[in-house]
Amino acid sequence: MIEHSKISKLSQKNLIRIENLTVEDINLILDTAKIFQGSNKEKNKSMPLLNGRTIINLFFEPSTRTLISFEIAARRLGADIINMNIEGSSLRKGESLLDTADTLNAMNPDLIIVRHSIPGSLNEIASRISCPLISAGEGINEHPTQALLDAFTIQNRGKNFKDITISICGDIEHSRVARSNYHLLKKMGAKIRFVSPNYFKPTDLDQFDVEYFDNLEAGISNVDIVMMLRIQNERIKEASVPSANAYFNDFGLTYEKLKRAKPDALIMHPGPINRNVEIESSLADDLDKSLINEQVENGVSIRMACLAIMTK
Amino acid sequence: MIEHSKISKLSQKNLIRIENLTVEDINLILDTAKIFQGSNKEKNKSMPLLNGRTIINLFFEPSTRTLISFEIAARRLGADIINMNIEGSSLRKGESLLDTADTLNAMNPDLIIVRHSIPGSLNEIASRISCPLISAGEGINEHPTQALLDAFTIQNRGKNFKDITISICGDIEHSRVARSNYHLLKKMGAKIRFVSPNYFKPTDLDQFDVEYFDNLEAGISNVDIVMMLRIQNERIKEASVPSANAYFNDFGLTYEKLKRAKPDALIMHPGPINRNVEIESSLADDLDKSLINEQVENGVSIRMACLAIMTK
Amino acid sequence: MIEHSKISKLSQKNLIRIENLTVEDINLILDTAKIFQGSNKEKNKSMPLLNGRTIINLFFEPSTRTLISFEIAARRLGADIINMNIEGSSLRKGESLLDTADTLNAMNPDLIIVRHSIPGSLNEIASRISCPLISAGEGINEHPTQALLDAFTIQNRGKNFKDITISICGDIEHSRVARSNYHLLKKMGAKIRFVSPNYFKPTDLDQFDVEYFDNLEAGISNVDIVMMLRIQNERIKEASVPSANAYFNDFGLTYEKLKRAKPDALIMHPGPINRNVEIESSLADDLDKSLINEQVENGVSIRMACLAIMTK
Repeated sequence: MIEHSKISKLSQKNLIRIENLTVEDINLILDTAKIFQGSNKEKNKSMPLLNGRTIINLFFEPSTRTLISFEIAARRLGADIINMNIEGSSLRKGESLLDTADTLNAMNPDLIIVRHSIPGSLNEIASRISCPLISAGEGINEHPTQALLDAFTIQNRGKNFKDITISICGDIEHSRVARSNYHLLKKMGAKIRFVSPNYFKPTDLDQFDVEYFDNLEAGISNVDIVMMLRIQNERIKEASVPSANAYFNDFGLTYEKLKRAKPDALIMHPGPINRNVEIESSLADDLDKSLINEQVENGVSIRMACLAIMTK
Repeated sequence: MIEHSKISKLSQKNLIRIENLTVEDINLILDTAKIFQGSNKEKNKSMPLLNGRTIINLFFEPSTRTLISFEIAARRLGADIINMNIEGSSLRKGESLLDTADTLNAMNPDLIIVRHSIPGSLNEIASRISCPLISAGEGINEHPTQALLDAFTIQNRGKNFKDITISICGDIEHSRVARSNYHLLKKMGAKIRFVSPNYFKPTDLDQFDVEYFDNLEAGISNVDIVMMLRIQNERIKEASVPSANAYFNDFGLTYEKLKRAKPDALIMHPGPINRNVEIESSLADDLDKSLINEQVENGVSIRMACLAIMTK
Repeated sequence: MIEHSKISKLSQKNLIRIENLTVEDINLILDTAKIFQGSNKEKNKSMPLLNGRTIINLFFEPSTRTLISFEIAARRLGADIINMNIEGSSLRKGESLLDTADTLNAMNPDLIIVRHSIPGSLNEIASRISCPLISAGEGINEHPTQALLDAFTIQNRGKNFKDITISICGDIEHSRVARSNYHLLKKMGAKIRFVSPNYFKPTDLDQFDVEYFDNLEAGISNVDIVMMLRIQNERIKEASVPSANAYFNDFGLTYEKLKRAKPDALIMHPGPINRNVEIESSLADDLDKSLINEQVENGVSIRMACLAIMTK
């Protein structure tokens, strides 16, 4: 078994933005995840590198896959993980975010994982605590472990980032997944396209070094990877978004539209998927083309790598 | 300590219905539970047969005793158990049941425990996952671990199934406990009576090889075990059910009515009890007659046995 | 590492009221906490004295710091801790408090930690269970582990209880923290003042051997410790409480008012604080004067001590 002392450190104390990572940081995480990918297929998945460490899962937004993915990752590493239930918490009694941070910090955790809907809140929390902080998603800013697991999944399929073109498609405006993936893939040398209907075109498009398309078929033509995004209904304030049906006709990925991509093109989606809205249901389940389940599986290995590295 | 490698396998991959088990399966579970019954009375209750295994408790209905019973069972076996909070989950974001199954399955669990209100849903989930599934109750179909712990409790009191008559009494129509107990006790050779008011008479009564009574006193006359059922208000749509008081007068078990059973007859109830509705409060607490607390205690041992056997 | 067999027993089976403890009991807990205070600052915080023990956190009131503090304490001791989610529990199905106690007790826990809003409920629960019970707060009666961690924090600052005067200030009427601290500090020989506006003056003031002040500045003049209380809005029925602003002007602790205390006076608050209501925000954060974070940190060590001692 790998020893914790053999694992290298990141250049950053916190993992809040892919934008702040070096290529070496990214490769360190991807290479470390490779170790856990093996142990996660064993009957005994225990890799107790973090015995006696205290990790807190502090989620201010509901979540299934990310919360549980971090929880399983921490457990397999032997850490004590505490899920912080915001509904039943003293935030109800009017305690502020920063007082919560102070309180948790005083209990000497080794790491705090935070999801919050307000951009900037994670840096505020990080400034109050002694231990590292890992983002589990922050407003529309970034969702760094999602991008890391996506890159890991692409790499596992034998792709070389420098040789491929990836189309990120759909609700780009409200997507932290798109932003994190953009920064990561760009650093690794991939060519990136943003593809969205006009009402989901990011208002800060000029900040990104991408080819932009407002048409799905043109946008995915001849690409290696089609990364569909979830429509973030909970973050949408505009009334201009059409019905699910109309969206599917226009921007839903189908077998038919996929013909425009390379013949061996692969499909990704951060989940949870809206079937027959963002993607044809049978295509999502087509294991020859869809990496959706591999993304979830790799998420545990990536998060084990992040926990092991960030607690160094 | 017993080793995991010494434990036998069940004839079935999943534990959804007692109806599908063989007598050998049932005896394997009862015999294995006997081992854990001893360790559960020690100060150190750890029996770490399942170190490094990941178990998910996926409950779509509220529960105290069953959820916690499985959680304690998993912890005492050294497994990592993840409680899946449906209220805070992405089912809120519109994720379907089967997508949730896919997601959890991708995280390589070794076992998933599921409670769901819709009959048939457990087989649907089981068909999407690689690991075994244990039912923690499915609609009005079955609640197999409840029947197993009931049988274990009866056996612990020195009863031989072939020699006894058991009356299952009350809201049979809406009771998965009644159905699981019927199948288990029938396979083990016991004589079974169903006793209910007419409005709780099962519509599929002809499917069961039982003596049926619509009168409690006649129904329990000269029996060895009186198994009272909970009124499943959450599953009752009919307006024809009388008041709690009227029900108690008619079908509530009292010291007086119990005189009709054998002098050493024992009382069971799957809990939580409605005091002075299904059963006289003081009779429920009478440790000479009531096995209610023993049922709960034995539940942990039975579930440890199920977890250890199903992960083989 | 300390061995569990070397730890002494308390004079009481349960820890519900400081009032029932001896000075030896209190010193045993404080001395044991000192051991864990060291290990809690290590990278590996594991002190697995309670391997294989089952502890249940049974909270009927919302909580952040106390629930998590007990959970972290139990995990660091290697125990299996089960958080009992009251919202999702069968209390919804109408199960009574005492039936819940019976059910949990039947699962052979080694310790149950309970918070409940109704005075007297903890003794009722304790009478139904075989294992010890630790209070995590009971109505307005007592909150014993809070008083213990407060005493531990005072002692850690080199204070001798016999030499100091402590002012407990604010909403005394509704505060279980005030009551537990009164009993503990009195037993240890400290001089105690109660300081409150008239509308928070305890109706049973004659039960306490204190100097009473209805003015904050006079009440803290020349004291060693100023212990501010949280306004317990959730327990206040009177309409006579003024606005937050008016309260702050009158009874909020400020740098200005603090000049009346000794020059090296220390400030405490059980949290969560209402900033600029009970205490000037910058004063709460002033690490030269405020022990608030130390109180939280010491809470984990005190609770580890209580868990280790009460499971003897």
